[in-house]
Amino acid sequence: MPEFTVQMGVRDYECDLQARVNNAVYQNYLEHARHLFLKARGIDFAALTASGIHVMVTRAELDYRRSLGPGDAFMVHLRTERVSRLRMAFIQRIELVGSGALVLDARFVVAAVNAKGKPCVVPELEALLDD
Amino acid sequence: MPEFTVQMGVRDYECDLQARVNNAVYQNYLEHARHLFLKARGIDFAALTASGIHVMVTRAELDYRRSLGPGDAFMVHLRTERVSRLRMAFIQRIELVGSGALVLDARFVVAAVNAKGKPCVVPELEALLDD
Amino acid sequence: MPEFTVQMGVRDYECDLQARVNNAVYQNYLEHARHLFLKARGIDFAALTASGIHVMVTRAELDYRRSLGPGDAFMVHLRTERVSRLRMAFIQRIELVGSGALVLDARFVVAAVNAKGKPCVVPELEALLDD
Amino acid sequence: MPEFTVQMGVRDYECDLQARVNNAVYQNYLEHARHLFLKARGIDFAALTASGIHVMVTRAELDYRRSLGPGDAFMVHLRTERVSRLRMAFIQRIELVGSGALVLDARFVVAAVNAKGKPCVVPELEALLDD
Repeated sequence: MPEFTVQMGVRDYECDLQARVNNAVYQNYLEHARHLFLKARGIDFAALTASGIHVMVTRAELDYRRSLGPGDAFMVHLRTERVSRLRMAFIQRIELVGSGALVLDARFVVAAVNAKGKPCVVPELEALLDD
Repeated sequence: MPEFTVQMGVRDYECDLQARVNNAVYQNYLEHARHLFLKARGIDFAALTASGIHVMVTRAELDYRRSLGPGDAFMVHLRTERVSRLRMAFIQRIELVGSGALVLDARFVVAAVNAKGKPCVVPELEALLDD
Repeated sequence: MPEFTVQMGVRDYECDLQARVNNAVYQNYLEHARHLFLKARGIDFAALTASGIHVMVTRAELDYRRSLGPGDAFMVHLRTERVSRLRMAFIQRIELVGSGALVLDARFVVAAVNAKGKPCVVPELEALLDD
Repeated sequence: MPEFTVQMGVRDYECDLQARVNNAVYQNYLEHARHLFLKARGIDFAALTASGIHVMVTRAELDYRRSLGPGDAFMVHLRTERVSRLRMAFIQRIELVGSGALVLDARFVVAAVNAKGKPCVVPELEALLDD
């Protein structure tokens, strides 16, 4: 599957007292990129949640290579990978616009549960792995 | 070294449209617990930063076991571990108050750089590993 | 009605590149204090929302007198006031622990809408104004 | 002076358990718009801060007219106004893209202090009021 890519920019309020983007904020960026990817593939995260399907992150791995600061523009790249019958992973990478310098590598494993709290296969998500 | 433990409570604004604590917020909780631990051991993170020493997370691993929601009280447990001459890790665990149910396991690898951006050994941090 | 008061502490991640608590974060503190007050009076904000009653802020006024920074402990004071049949206000004040120096004065006007999106009187909220 | 306008989109993590953008997040949007405006006029907020000039909000007024939720795109409009010799105001308005429906009206009064903590006139900011 071709990679999904989205460009974003650092907002000053995302920087902490080190004057760099706070570690937790990268998870916001990465989640936002995942939701944009889902939307581009016809899946609305908020609507999915409202329908009773909760997609949840079960494991996150983030390798911080270089920090972002005020004024930085960056690309978030994303691809998916099957982990097991009930789990898939999002492989994500952040790079600086311009130099292309690597900022962060990450991997998020996700699973879905239905309205009864039972793990379930979501056909729309399965379709993301088909190609 | 005996574990460091701190109790915190979920604030409603930390919950997202799934009505559960957003994944990124756990990094806030875990960072806050690390800074409280440092302070309890005589290290002020803001003062360290102001002095030109930047302590940075180089890798984060979070295993989400069970989510937190409105009204939940939880404990963050923390211990340290040497990784290499220049790196140490914080092993952290979140448990529900009451049942003690496991919410999250995490491991943060950190390194320090001095005002020139060079990796450095920070004696105050080394002392955390001595016992 | 006697004032409601709660003590909180600044968390480092709440500070921005000015190394002071970001302006938006005070709204988080003030919302959290309002929800703790409601809970102390028997009203669970999340449960109220789940029941279809949405309590919404319609106007916020914040006078920033003095900023908070790393390590600061502060008190949030709160009292209520009737604005009209359908609106009430929370008058809030933040003071530094120790000196008692004034940090912020604020006023939040709130209204409630029912599941059909119509403004409504919520008896539990009315009771907050009875004394 | 012609209005400054910037388009932004709601990110799912900005929504709270009411599934609408949390009240505090609008302050993030409005701050980001102010900083983009400053940058468009040649003023870098982070650089200004690093130079010892702290521009601070002294009063914020926000009238919430209609909430934003998942998937919403919106415009932030901004203009400046002199308040006194040492204070200026940003008049801001958020509107939905498409319908143009009014979401929020706001007014932020700001002042600057120099490295000694004394109120000061910042020529770059004065220039914003000249036309």
